[in-house]
Amino acid sequence: MEILKFQGWSFSEIFHVNEADANLALLPRDIKAEDAVMLSDMVTTGFHGAELANIKLGDTVCVIGIGPVGLMSVAGANHLGAGRIFAVGSRKHCCDIAMEYGATDIINYKNGDIVEQILKATDGKGVDKVVIAGGDVHTFAQAVKMIKPGSDIGNVNYLGEGDNIDIPRSEWGVGMGHKHIHGGLTPGGRVRMEKLASLISTGKLDTSKLITHRFEGLEKVEDALMLMKNKPADLIKPVVRIHYDDEDTLH
Amino acid sequence: MEILKFQGWSFSEIFHVNEADANLALLPRDIKAEDAVMLSDMVTTGFHGAELANIKLGDTVCVIGIGPVGLMSVAGANHLGAGRIFAVGSRKHCCDIAMEYGATDIINYKNGDIVEQILKATDGKGVDKVVIAGGDVHTFAQAVKMIKPGSDIGNVNYLGEGDNIDIPRSEWGVGMGHKHIHGGLTPGGRVRMEKLASLISTGKLDTSKLITHRFEGLEKVEDALMLMKNKPADLIKPVVRIHYDDEDTLH
Amino acid sequence: MEILKFQGWSFSEIFHVNEADANLALLPRDIKAEDAVMLSDMVTTGFHGAELANIKLGDTVCVIGIGPVGLMSVAGANHLGAGRIFAVGSRKHCCDIAMEYGATDIINYKNGDIVEQILKATDGKGVDKVVIAGGDVHTFAQAVKMIKPGSDIGNVNYLGEGDNIDIPRSEWGVGMGHKHIHGGLTPGGRVRMEKLASLISTGKLDTSKLITHRFEGLEKVEDALMLMKNKPADLIKPVVRIHYDDEDTLH
Amino acid sequence: MEILKFQGWSFSEIFHVNEADANLALLPRDIKAEDAVMLSDMVTTGFHGAELANIKLGDTVCVIGIGPVGLMSVAGANHLGAGRIFAVGSRKHCCDIAMEYGATDIINYKNGDIVEQILKATDGKGVDKVVIAGGDVHTFAQAVKMIKPGSDIGNVNYLGEGDNIDIPRSEWGVGMGHKHIHGGLTPGGRVRMEKLASLISTGKLDTSKLITHRFEGLEKVEDALMLMKNKPADLIKPVVRIHYDDEDTLH
Repeated sequence: MEILKFQGWSFSEIFHVNEADANLALLPRDIKAEDAVMLSDMVTTGFHGAELANIKLGDTVCVIGIGPVGLMSVAGANHLGAGRIFAVGSRKHCCDIAMEYGATDIINYKNGDIVEQILKATDGKGVDKVVIAGGDVHTFAQAVKMIKPGSDIGNVNYLGEGDNIDIPRSEWGVGMGHKHIHGGLTPGGRVRMEKLASLISTGKLDTSKLITHRFEGLEKVEDALMLMKNKPADLIKPVVRIHYDDEDTLH
Repeated sequence: MEILKFQGWSFSEIFHVNEADANLALLPRDIKAEDAVMLSDMVTTGFHGAELANIKLGDTVCVIGIGPVGLMSVAGANHLGAGRIFAVGSRKHCCDIAMEYGATDIINYKNGDIVEQILKATDGKGVDKVVIAGGDVHTFAQAVKMIKPGSDIGNVNYLGEGDNIDIPRSEWGVGMGHKHIHGGLTPGGRVRMEKLASLISTGKLDTSKLITHRFEGLEKVEDALMLMKNKPADLIKPVVRIHYDDEDTLH
Repeated sequence: MEILKFQGWSFSEIFHVNEADANLALLPRDIKAEDAVMLSDMVTTGFHGAELANIKLGDTVCVIGIGPVGLMSVAGANHLGAGRIFAVGSRKHCCDIAMEYGATDIINYKNGDIVEQILKATDGKGVDKVVIAGGDVHTFAQAVKMIKPGSDIGNVNYLGEGDNIDIPRSEWGVGMGHKHIHGGLTPGGRVRMEKLASLISTGKLDTSKLITHRFEGLEKVEDALMLMKNKPADLIKPVVRIHYDDEDTLH
Repeated sequence: MEILKFQGWSFSEIFHVNEADANLALLPRDIKAEDAVMLSDMVTTGFHGAELANIKLGDTVCVIGIGPVGLMSVAGANHLGAGRIFAVGSRKHCCDIAMEYGATDIINYKNGDIVEQILKATDGKGVDKVVIAGGDVHTFAQAVKMIKPGSDIGNVNYLGEGDNIDIPRSEWGVGMGHKHIHGGLTPGGRVRMEKLASLISTGKLDTSKLITHRFEGLEKVEDALMLMKNKPADLIKPVVRIHYDDEDTLH
């Protein structure tokens, strides 16, 4: 029997979901549960960053932040037709994976100001679109400074601190530069999940690259959470697999 | 003989225009030259603010600033299908004209914080869209605070001073509120002018309401500019009419 | 007490609506019930025709068919910023009301081929957009012939008969004319109804012009339906008002 | 010295191009001239089919016709985020290349009705989007029959014969199915070419797969044209390389 893939995952074995037809999608048999669990959070959020940045065929894109969401923004930018993709990060493993997901250039912020690095790499032209998937309230100023007029900045990063996001007046074209600023939460739902799942089924997206640590059993949730808190250099995302008596329901 | 309406107006009797087919539009005989002169600056800019704010049928809109551009943003919002339109201003003449162009409510910033006034008038819900056609770098914070999630802010105001535009982190939904921020220069060109001109020809837009002072002769340009500098309470826009020997060319 | 306005109206006094939050909207106290009943069918459908036709500021538009839905397409085109609006019809009362809703020209198909009339009236250029709110499967060929390249045709007419809609190959630009063809059912729901209702509340849309015949009591539904079947020349739309014991619930 | 890549190619050694800034793009040094020549016709046209079909992340797409333009529609659909891609064709070489460009399923019209094959392969659901890059005026009826409601059909095929394109009334949702029909000529220009070229430079698009026959010298144009007329089974696209005295201008 097939089981259902849930839009939201929780730390329990049984839970209630409203509006099943709108919010539950069948997990295709050819997708592993641990790969699928990336769809309802990392993939849809990261891809939404690329959608918010309004990426078009051949755009030069900068993705700032390449944790698991940012890596999916790189993949999303690539799936939406981006040409050159700058990925801003520093951890080697994440940079390597970013290149596998479609990045063409790595910008390491430890090597100097990222705006200067981007402008130098683009002969002073800057990029067409920016996806913000990391950083803080000050990251937007960098995005505005590295992007061309007539462009879009898409943010999916949760901004936890700071009073204001500062948009530099002059580089924002004194209000007239058509540098559009977007920030949003990803859409969810059954249809969205089915569509994203098809990218895995067809072999066009491999979410297993995001999984660096695997745990077995509900009781390991705490270990996994501690791992996410401590952030070892080789971590992208841990997965906890919960066992069921009727194991074949998980195919 | 018909003459041409120029996309950009200049303070001279003869000037050169590149790409005539793209940049010059025939002035329809039924439009007065002084009304038409509003098209290539006030109308297209103000309307573009409404376009940038992505106004849809029945939206509740706030237009901040009701000088000549802002008044055209009110008219533009109305032409794009807005329902309730709050116009933020204080000068009586501008407020009266705003109501004639489609505003349904006047918000006078001299009566208190405009965000509080808007929230009170909308039962705490806020507005669907904001057009910024006046104010300064601090106006964006007000816009973000008065607008619902899933919304658009369109700016056409030239921001002449200040280092940064401050976007309040919390009210911007911690980066996830889908409050899109746009700022741009109006598109121009022949087709745009022809389309906007048709709104005058069909009687759907009356730009003569913008003209509060009329001058005759090129030598009066200085008087008109001084008027714009001194900004008397009853001023919206002055027009200087230049005389030609072959007067019927100006029909 | 306020009562609810229902998205769909039915011929009964009590009925069940799923998903109340999504499908029921409060009827504002300043809107009469008989005016509001137009919102959930005529207004939203007619306006959707204008939305499907992708009407932009200053567009020249042709609305084919000016029964109650088509009249709302005329109004919708006007609310979306159309300049010149050709309304195609023949009944005097409908033509008069079309002019009140924003039409600038009436095209009577009894006076000859409507394509020729439109081309003549536009100096051979044709129109920017067409809304189809009447006619049959052959109406699309007329729309394609009267529209410019780079344009949109929006249909909201139910096509009850005929095997095929014929799109003329040559006039459709041999497949390359960017004459986009859309046909759809209107969106509904609470938010849509609230937004359209605001157009009535603000005095920007007067649906009472659509109501030509009024009946009192549920038992008059049959009379009203017969009227719609017989279509007298002065009919646009009949309304049947149902009485409630607690009359003030209908304010 | 770098030379210029021309938007339109002609059968002569010298020719005039208007508006150089808008119409000429620099050929990046890392792109071979024969690969680049595909950009200004096959790539931009095929990709535009995918753009017209409004392809979104995870869409199931059918591309009808997989000659050189159709193959680029397959690639374009893939670059825009399609999941499952059905490619309709019969010649083995083209089918093989289609799979390399992102197709996941081949539909051979010699094996029966393509609509039935598509519906069977999708459990009766049909596809989200259709790109028409081959066939004739009757192909649109197939597209309408195989596509879901709420969808887009994008045509880039030149329709050389037939009076009408027949859209089946019933399967088109009696005018209300939101099955949008688009047909257009590709946009061109410098920016477009630069963006598409970046897909080659970054290794994300390999146009050399389209080139099955190579000729040397302007005098071979006739041979190449005869090849295109005779269409051998292994032909996708021939290229004629013209020699210049100053050979290094072609890097």
